[in-house]
Amino acid sequence: MTTTFPELNPPVRVLMGPGPSDTHPRVLQALAKGTVGHLDPYYLETMNGLQEMLRQVYRTKNPMTMAISGTGSAGMEAVVDNLIEPGDKMIVCVNGVFGGRMVDVAQRAGAEVTKIERPWGEVFTVDDLKPVLESVRPKVVGIVMAETSTGAWQPIEEISKLVHSYNALLAVDAVTALGGIPLEVDAWNIDAIYSGTQKCLSCPPGLSPVSFSPAAMEKVMSRKTKVQSWYLDVSMLANYWGQNRVYHHTGPINMTYALYEALRLVLEEGLEKCHARHALNHKALRAGLEAIGIKYSTQEGHILPQLNAVLIPEGIDDAKVRGDLLNRFGIEIGAGLGAYKGKVWRIGLMGYGSRPANVLLILSALEQLLAEQGYQFQRGASIAAATTVYQNAAK
Amino acid sequence: MTTTFPELNPPVRVLMGPGPSDTHPRVLQALAKGTVGHLDPYYLETMNGLQEMLRQVYRTKNPMTMAISGTGSAGMEAVVDNLIEPGDKMIVCVNGVFGGRMVDVAQRAGAEVTKIERPWGEVFTVDDLKPVLESVRPKVVGIVMAETSTGAWQPIEEISKLVHSYNALLAVDAVTALGGIPLEVDAWNIDAIYSGTQKCLSCPPGLSPVSFSPAAMEKVMSRKTKVQSWYLDVSMLANYWGQNRVYHHTGPINMTYALYEALRLVLEEGLEKCHARHALNHKALRAGLEAIGIKYSTQEGHILPQLNAVLIPEGIDDAKVRGDLLNRFGIEIGAGLGAYKGKVWRIGLMGYGSRPANVLLILSALEQLLAEQGYQFQRGASIAAATTVYQNAAK
Repeated sequence: MTTTFPELNPPVRVLMGPGPSDTHPRVLQALAKGTVGHLDPYYLETMNGLQEMLRQVYRTKNPMTMAISGTGSAGMEAVVDNLIEPGDKMIVCVNGVFGGRMVDVAQRAGAEVTKIERPWGEVFTVDDLKPVLESVRPKVVGIVMAETSTGAWQPIEEISKLVHSYNALLAVDAVTALGGIPLEVDAWNIDAIYSGTQKCLSCPPGLSPVSFSPAAMEKVMSRKTKVQSWYLDVSMLANYWGQNRVYHHTGPINMTYALYEALRLVLEEGLEKCHARHALNHKALRAGLEAIGIKYSTQEGHILPQLNAVLIPEGIDDAKVRGDLLNRFGIEIGAGLGAYKGKVWRIGLMGYGSRPANVLLILSALEQLLAEQGYQFQRGASIAAATTVYQNAAK
Repeated sequence: MTTTFPELNPPVRVLMGPGPSDTHPRVLQALAKGTVGHLDPYYLETMNGLQEMLRQVYRTKNPMTMAISGTGSAGMEAVVDNLIEPGDKMIVCVNGVFGGRMVDVAQRAGAEVTKIERPWGEVFTVDDLKPVLESVRPKVVGIVMAETSTGAWQPIEEISKLVHSYNALLAVDAVTALGGIPLEVDAWNIDAIYSGTQKCLSCPPGLSPVSFSPAAMEKVMSRKTKVQSWYLDVSMLANYWGQNRVYHHTGPINMTYALYEALRLVLEEGLEKCHARHALNHKALRAGLEAIGIKYSTQEGHILPQLNAVLIPEGIDDAKVRGDLLNRFGIEIGAGLGAYKGKVWRIGLMGYGSRPANVLLILSALEQLLAEQGYQFQRGASIAAATTVYQNAAK
C-alpha cells in the first residue's frame, strides 16, 4: 500500500540567485540542535538574545523587534495588516514584483491604495512622492528598499523625512536589504520594517525579522478594529515577545536557533565590515561582467551589491545557460521575473555567499557557457578584471 | 559596541508536554542538510514526495494537500480565511482554547460566528449540533478533533454526516491528532483540515500540514472576494504546490526537509502500528497514574492517548512539580491553560516521545516529587502497573 519514499539527499548547490542564498555551516548546525519547549527558560533567553541582536542589525532600539513565524512575505503581511485599518489610505511605491505584492496585500487588508510607479530597475525620488503625498494624505507609505526582482537600491532617508512631514508612517521592505547594505531604522525614522532570513543573513527561509517603531505601535494599539490576521497580530505577539511571555502560538524553535546563529555571525564580523564585504565582491563581479560586455539592467548609482540584475546578451539562450549552470556546475542563479522574464539574470552575492570564490566561480562558468553559445569576448577577461579589483582593495 | 551573545547550547530535555514533542534524531539530521533553491528540481521533487506522504497520513486523495509555511495556528487561519467570505455563517464548537481561537480567527475573517460550547474536557455529540445547524444553516462548521488544552478526543465521523446533510463544509483542527489517532479525511468527508508538525510527527514546530477537499476548493475558487491573506491564499498556493509550480513565496526549504523525513518515519512504521503504539503507551501511563490515585480531567471514553490531561492532586504545588521536573530531571510537561490553570497537568506521549522509556521516566519522576510533597501513595505502584500493561500486551 505504502510506496517507499527516498531518503533525503539534496544535491550540493552554490546558491547565487535572488535567495535563498547558501546557508552558513554554523547555521545548519544550529538548526539541528535539540528542540526545547517554546516556554522553556532557555528558549525565552534565546528569544531575548535574538531580539537584541536583531536590534543591533536593524540599528534600532525598538522594543517590538522580533521574528514573525513565516517567510518574508508573512512579514510584509504582518506590517501591512497591523498598520492598516479598513479604509485607511496607503501609498505604495511599485517598481518591481515586491512593490506590486504590497499593493495586493494592502488591498486585501482594506486599504485604499494609491500606487506610484517607476519603470523596473529604477528608484523613487522625493519629487516622485511629494505631489502624491500632497493629494492623497495617506496614513501609511510603503516602499521596497532592495527590489529583489530588479536589483534596485532605493534610498530611504530623504523619502522618510518627506513622508513624516505629511504625518504618515513609513513601511519598508528590507527582505533583501538586511545585512547586505547599510540600513538605519532609528536614524532614518522607519516605522515598520520586515526582512527575510534567506538573503544576506545566510539562514534558510522560514522567518521574517520585523521591527515596529513606538509610533507604529501607537497606531497598532489604538486601532478601532482587530488586526485581520490573528496569527500576525502584533498586539498579541507583543505579549509573547515582550516581558509577559504570554503564550500566543508555538514558536518555530529550531528555525529560531538558526536565525540566532545567523545574527551572531553578522555581529561577529561587524555590520560595517559585512556591508564592505558585500560591496567589494559586487565591485569585483561587476568588473568581471563588464569586462566581457555584460551590462546591468538597473539604474546606474542604484545597483544593489547583493543582487546583480544583468541583461542577457543578445542571441544567448537564457534557459539553457541557467540549466547548464545548475546541472553541469551546481550553480543556481535567478531568472527574470515578470517584465524581466527572459531578459535578465539575477546573480546573488548574499551573506556567506558573498565571497571571492563565488565571484570567480560564476565568472568562469558564465565565460564557458557563453563561449559555447558563440558569444564573442576575450576569454579570461572577466577573471582578470575581478582579480584586479581584489588586488587594488588589498593595497 | 556589540555585546557578545553566547553560543547556542540548548539543554537536553525530554519534551512530554502538549508540544513541541521531542524531535526525532533523523528529523534533526534532515534539518541540517544543505539548502537548495525553492524552484530547484530536487526541491520540487521533495515537495511532491511530501505531498504524497501527507495524503497517505491524512488518508486522502485531495490534490490540495500541502504544508502551510507557518505553525498550526497559521494552518487554522489558512483554512478559515479561505473558506469564509465576509458575512458567511459559521458554527464553531468550543470546548477548550483552540475552539475559542477558531472563533476569533473566523470573526476576523468576517464570519458571522455562532459558538456552541461544551464544558472543558467534554466533547460534542450530533445532538448538540443538530438544533444549531437547523437554526443557523451555516456555510462552514469548525471543530477540534484533539483539543490540546483539555486532552479531549472528539469523534468526527457522525458529526461530518450531520454537517453535510445541512450542506455545510466541515473544517477540522487536527493539530494534535495527526499521527496519534486514526484520522480518515476522505472516508469521513472532511472538507478542510490542518495540523502541526510539532506533535505526533516528531518534527519541530514551523509548518502546518493542510488538506482541502474538492468541495472546499470549489468554494475557494468561486469566491467573490479575495482571500484576506495573500500569504495563505490557497488559490495562489495551488499554483505553487500544484503542477504549475508558479512562484508564490519562498518555501521554508529546511523545515520542508524535516517534515519530509518525519512523514517517512510515520509511513515506515505504518499508520496503524503508529496509532497502536500511541494507544499502548497511553494505556501504560494511565494505569501507572491511576495506580497512585491520579485521575484524568477528560470525559471518560474521550481521552486522547497522546495528550494526558490529569487533575493535580489536592495540596500539591503545581508550579513546584513542573519546575522540579524541568530543572532536576530535564522533563517538560504542560501546565493547564485557561480554565485549567493550576488544576491540570498535560502529559504528552507524542510521536517519537510515545515510548515505554518515557512512560517509566515520567512516572518515576512524578512519584519522587509527589512523595517529597507529602502525597500519600504506595511507592513503585505506578511503575508496576505500567509494566503490567506492557507485559500483557506482549503476551
